Amino acid sequence: MINHRINTYMEYTMYDTLLQLPLFQGMSKAEFSEVIEKVKFHFHKFGDREVLFAQGATCDKLVFLLRGRLAAETVAPCGTFSFEELVEWPAIVEPHSLFGKRPCYKATYTAQGEVALLTIDKQYIYSVLDKYEVFRMNFFNLLSNKAEQLYESIWSIDAQELEGRLIHFIRSLCNTRRGTKVLRVKMEELANLLDDTRLNVSNVLNKWQEEGLVEMRRKEFVFHDVGSLRAL
Amino acid sequence: MINHRINTYMEYTMYDTLLQLPLFQGMSKAEFSEVIEKVKFHFHKFGDREVLFAQGATCDKLVFLLRGRLAAETVAPCGTFSFEELVEWPAIVEPHSLFGKRPCYKATYTAQGEVALLTIDKQYIYSVLDKYEVFRMNFFNLLSNKAEQLYESIWSIDAQELEGRLIHFIRSLCNTRRGTKVLRVKMEELANLLDDTRLNVSNVLNKWQEEGLVEMRRKEFVFHDVGSLRAL
Repeated sequence: MINHRINTYMEYTMYDTLLQLPLFQGMSKAEFSEVIEKVKFHFHKFGDREVLFAQGATCDKLVFLLRGRLAAETVAPCGTFSFEELVEWPAIVEPHSLFGKRPCYKATYTAQGEVALLTIDKQYIYSVLDKYEVFRMNFFNLLSNKAEQLYESIWSIDAQELEGRLIHFIRSLCNTRRGTKVLRVKMEELANLLDDTRLNVSNVLNKWQEEGLVEMRRKEFVFHDVGSLRAL
Repeated sequence: MINHRINTYMEYTMYDTLLQLPLFQGMSKAEFSEVIEKVKFHFHKFGDREVLFAQGATCDKLVFLLRGRLAAETVAPCGTFSFEELVEWPAIVEPHSLFGKRPCYKATYTAQGEVALLTIDKQYIYSVLDKYEVFRMNFFNLLSNKAEQLYESIWSIDAQELEGRLIHFIRSLCNTRRGTKVLRVKMEELANLLDDTRLNVSNVLNKWQEEGLVEMRRKEFVFHDVGSLRAL
């Protein structure tokens, strides 16, 4: 009885969490109940620092972060830098990496503290989920918004001084503006990427550190609020 | 009778063209016949240099290029440059701009010679098209591939000499590698965008011109094969 109550409570909060996510928003309770009956949900728990998915691994399931926080780190193809963002619950992990020619994770996801996930195998998108218009429209919107965001990032290039170019570079790597970001790169390599001198890049970053915009560690630059970086 | 024959022939070739497009690929003839019965097709013809859609205008229909060629020009938000690509039939015009928060054309489309279009109002995606699994999967794939392409473009940044950076800049603006591209920008502005001197940028472009990689006109740089541009 107690277990039953706990399950019911857990289910309630879980469904509540799912319904907050952009994929299920707008779905009626009745539709959502149908989905729950037909779709197989897998629950996973991970401890602190456990790796959930590796960059480049096949993405073949819808992944929902129900509780906790993930660090998502992408190593650039050139190999000289990486960029890490935090993913806070509730969230869907890379819905844009499920389809297309190369359905692979674009980042390595590591638990920060305890993490609870729910996953749904990709096959259920075909067999159940996309039978619901709300789900389809939400998914079309999710994917289109992602393309729009990336497109804007590319086209926002402008003639700028080093500080502006550094801001553009950092923002182009962000999936969201929210949360802490960590750029891992040697100062020398960062200067090369921006085609400027080590000294100039170091001057900008030191100025930012004095203004509280960045925390400089060894080969790491931590930004707690990329929105506060403003081009001059 | 003659008209009937002509219509049948035209319909046949039109359907044939549509079935070649990634949105309908894999659809059975029976399914496609059903679609034709339920969906309202609009046909349009445009003469040389007529503007079909303007950058920033609302994108509220599926647009199929059935015959001819379009010039698609995007003016960058900074206003200092534009980039033009050619769209050859058969093609779908910006399927990634139909959904999301800002469903607007990203380029201005102008007919190059005579052009035949078929359009389907967005409402038919909800009411008919996305009832077909093949269509949905094709659309998910189209959108995901677009996001993947843009993502790769952003992350392919590397420490490079001016020539490599110029190639990266041009390629990041391309939707396809095929066909002629026109970059419209003053040499001085291009140098500013790349944070280099006018002389250095001019030297690279003159070298490319000697190698037949670019055609330099007044404030215009024409690339007939961006694939042949190779970083050193």
